[in-house]
Amino acid sequence: MTGLPPLTSIAYESGVVRFIDQRLLPGDLRIVETNDWRVVKRALLSLSVRGAPLIGVAAALAVAAEARRSDPSRVRKDTSRAIDSLGSARPTAVNLGWAMSRMSRLLQSTDDDSAAAALEREALAIFDEDRAACDRIAGAGLALIPDGATILTICNTGFLATGGTGTALAIVYRAQSVGRVKRVYVPETRPLLQGGRLTAWELASAGVPFKLIADGAIGAALRSGVDLAIIGADRIAANGDTANKIGSLPLALACKRFRIPLYVAAPLTTFDLFTADGSQIPIEERDGEEVRRFRRSRIADPAAPVFNPAFDVVEADLIQGFITDRGLFHTPYRFTEGMTNASGEKVLFREA
Amino acid sequence: MTGLPPLTSIAYESGVVRFIDQRLLPGDLRIVETNDWRVVKRALLSLSVRGAPLIGVAAALAVAAEARRSDPSRVRKDTSRAIDSLGSARPTAVNLGWAMSRMSRLLQSTDDDSAAAALEREALAIFDEDRAACDRIAGAGLALIPDGATILTICNTGFLATGGTGTALAIVYRAQSVGRVKRVYVPETRPLLQGGRLTAWELASAGVPFKLIADGAIGAALRSGVDLAIIGADRIAANGDTANKIGSLPLALACKRFRIPLYVAAPLTTFDLFTADGSQIPIEERDGEEVRRFRRSRIADPAAPVFNPAFDVVEADLIQGFITDRGLFHTPYRFTEGMTNASGEKVLFREA
Repeated sequence: MTGLPPLTSIAYESGVVRFIDQRLLPGDLRIVETNDWRVVKRALLSLSVRGAPLIGVAAALAVAAEARRSDPSRVRKDTSRAIDSLGSARPTAVNLGWAMSRMSRLLQSTDDDSAAAALEREALAIFDEDRAACDRIAGAGLALIPDGATILTICNTGFLATGGTGTALAIVYRAQSVGRVKRVYVPETRPLLQGGRLTAWELASAGVPFKLIADGAIGAALRSGVDLAIIGADRIAANGDTANKIGSLPLALACKRFRIPLYVAAPLTTFDLFTADGSQIPIEERDGEEVRRFRRSRIADPAAPVFNPAFDVVEADLIQGFITDRGLFHTPYRFTEGMTNASGEKVLFREA
Repeated sequence: MTGLPPLTSIAYESGVVRFIDQRLLPGDLRIVETNDWRVVKRALLSLSVRGAPLIGVAAALAVAAEARRSDPSRVRKDTSRAIDSLGSARPTAVNLGWAMSRMSRLLQSTDDDSAAAALEREALAIFDEDRAACDRIAGAGLALIPDGATILTICNTGFLATGGTGTALAIVYRAQSVGRVKRVYVPETRPLLQGGRLTAWELASAGVPFKLIADGAIGAALRSGVDLAIIGADRIAANGDTANKIGSLPLALACKRFRIPLYVAAPLTTFDLFTADGSQIPIEERDGEEVRRFRRSRIADPAAPVFNPAFDVVEADLIQGFITDRGLFHTPYRFTEGMTNASGEKVLFREA
């Protein structure tokens, strides 16, 4: 066992984006190939492609594909439209807006003839940087994992959520590779079951021992003995309040109850220093059918009213620290320009 | 709108028990008719019949049916076997053991020729008392419901969980009948979706406004504005620690976070003064397939390991009070012989 599942969630070559349709996992492993950003946008909307870092990578690659197939005389107009439309696909994950801003800035600094090559280079740089960030997060997190660790994580934060090995799950894989993991508890993560369908599948592929639980069983699982919980993030505000998959707040509160540290693992691209606190983070509400149905099974009447927020806000006081590609940050703090990580390294990551 | 759904979950006539197969709701309303306690036991095991008070009623009626069809020369042996076997069907709900003890004591105090009639009278008394308890719980709880109330409840605690109108949901129905309910939040309650399938259906039938949520969305729902949470109970220990459907602990912790009172609604038959605290309550672990599947849809590999506790323990410090058929009890306290309820009435309910 290498400790790593043998797959990547996304690839790009010569103007073609390839991605796994994650809605069909774990039953079917279907790869979608496209050079059309609209196909990628639909995949973002349907959560065929999800996970904050992966969303940013996928949108950037879709813009690169559009630049490739566009005539130089239209490339500026075509890619601008793609950037605007892709950028609005999901409101909560800041990585999407960040990646689209980066592509947009690049577009403004290039001429029509070199735009396609430049946008492609930029998208591949975003992809590469995300892979590297995953590796650095794994390295920074390893220090927190004791021998024989039992870890709880929610949703999916692995290969399928990033361009690389993951955020929270990347740490699990790294710890597994040095023999430190006894067990991972995996809440199934309704409504779309990213835990039950995706994380369980990734962990099984990687040979990591795990137990699947219903979302309501987080308290019982923590009570049974867990060393730490690690979650990903879709947006981290300047005060440390963190938006992550719905269910993260009950998990954080249960961690507090049982005095189990909760860490957030995320690349710096997930930090949004222009959002003061969690109350300012836009929370996506998704269609009620996600809750009323599961695939072919109807649970509740089609007319049953549903409240279906996709994300929770976990306040900073519930978070022990942030495991980033620039090291570990302990709370309490405010993220500011020129802040220093736990190793005393100065980390500047406020980008105007 | 009467504020009440037009149904009862169980009925008994001339040695025949009729019950709704709750696994098929809300899609199919199938009534099972039987005079065989084994059929009732299978229904308890499969959760076709569930809800702590209803479990006790159903088992008692099954014993009555067995007594009816048994020859007087065998009635003692036959009903004893039924009592023992039914009593072991589910370990957590104390109502089941309590009802079977009552049937067993009755059997010991009667002769063979009058056993059938006596057991039937006792079972019908248990049934009647449960119905009356539901009504008294509804009355006791009404005082806690403000005008325009938003209430959160978990699992199913209505008609389908009791012999009467319910425990927590009985209070909702009573409040609805006097126009006090603005909205009820209903967590779907995985793995078996008693919220999404049963409570949503009951509330829609009764014309009570509600919103269905994923279990992970309890924190987001409470944050959006909830006046109080009311849950049922499967067993309440002498110190007030309460076993209830898995997911009740995260709910209680989220209530604490947002300073929203959490009440437990249960008949006195759910109190177990011989269990000192929550750590002594046996927690049923159920088959992993309940989590790995979602009816016809497979979520996770059949080999995926699962931790599937059916119940949570909510410690007494998280509970504002108990709404019982003998009035309201505020915490903190210890349940003891001769205790007094919130109205100053002396309530003796320790039965040796």
